[in-house]
Amino acid sequence: MFCRRRDPPIPGSDCLTLRRVVATGTFDILHPGHLYYLEESKKLGDELWVIVARDANVRHKPRPIIPEEHRLRMVSALKPVTHAILGDKTDMFRPIQEIQPAIITIGFNQHFDEIKLHQQLSERELHPSIVRIGRYENGDLCSSRIVVERIIEVRGKKDMSHETN
Amino acid sequence: MFCRRRDPPIPGSDCLTLRRVVATGTFDILHPGHLYYLEESKKLGDELWVIVARDANVRHKPRPIIPEEHRLRMVSALKPVTHAILGDKTDMFRPIQEIQPAIITIGFNQHFDEIKLHQQLSERELHPSIVRIGRYENGDLCSSRIVVERIIEVRGKKDMSHETN
Repeated sequence: MFCRRRDPPIPGSDCLTLRRVVATGTFDILHPGHLYYLEESKKLGDELWVIVARDANVRHKPRPIIPEEHRLRMVSALKPVTHAILGDKTDMFRPIQEIQPAIITIGFNQHFDEIKLHQQLSERELHPSIVRIGRYENGDLCSSRIVVERIIEVRGKKDMSHETN
Repeated sequence: MFCRRRDPPIPGSDCLTLRRVVATGTFDILHPGHLYYLEESKKLGDELWVIVARDANVRHKPRPIIPEEHRLRMVSALKPVTHAILGDKTDMFRPIQEIQPAIITIGFNQHFDEIKLHQQLSERELHPSIVRIGRYENGDLCSSRIVVERIIEVRGKKDMSHETN
């Protein structure tokens, strides 16, 4: 069990100083870019909590291939991740209120407007630092979209050629 | 650093009783079936070492989508994994000789003939137990092949329709 930052601090307890970091994302087909984002996020605090997007809430890009429960299970299994949960179906800020993070990290290609996000959090009396994590530069397949495109390019054509043979 | 089972045991040291388990695979697009295989393997010993197949050595199925260095990085990042390495380019038994495992696990759909494998290991004076891990039953996307097929089905057609529009 993890003690919460909003619990009364117990003198001599780790809870006095635990810094929670929250990272968010879809994490559809895991790749080293995701891992880099999570590793860099974890370095900023003591516990990394990850909010995994619900299938129904992914609207700004194609729906995930991998169902939310599988995505949650895989993210939970990564070493930098202390705890992963699914997002709230209707209120994206509810888990943030529960977790009370000191820091929220944003991936290099996530579409949040940091100023607007600050305002929305402030309205709920949440004041975490917002940190944008840089791009992972060591690979050309560090994007679920690019992995999907590669799969279609390499295997899709093969499958189509089988169909016509 | 991990002490090796072949090192002289140090009285009072953990090395006296460490049981190494070796799991192997391609781990192309990570899914909960992989995770289940690794978690079940880890339960059998103290350290789980994973040998990740080299791109050039994957011949019994389509070549991996994800390059070997990325696959290695992702497998290394999973909680049950103590240490992951790439396989040897020419001799699949060389890493086994290095690691000296007490147990080698085989995934439910891996094509090894256990009796032949026992014989090949014995010829090198290796006598690990060989344990086949059962199938993970909780998901229909627990196969890299099925994930690839789903991607081609869901996104490939969309991409093709874009091309013709």
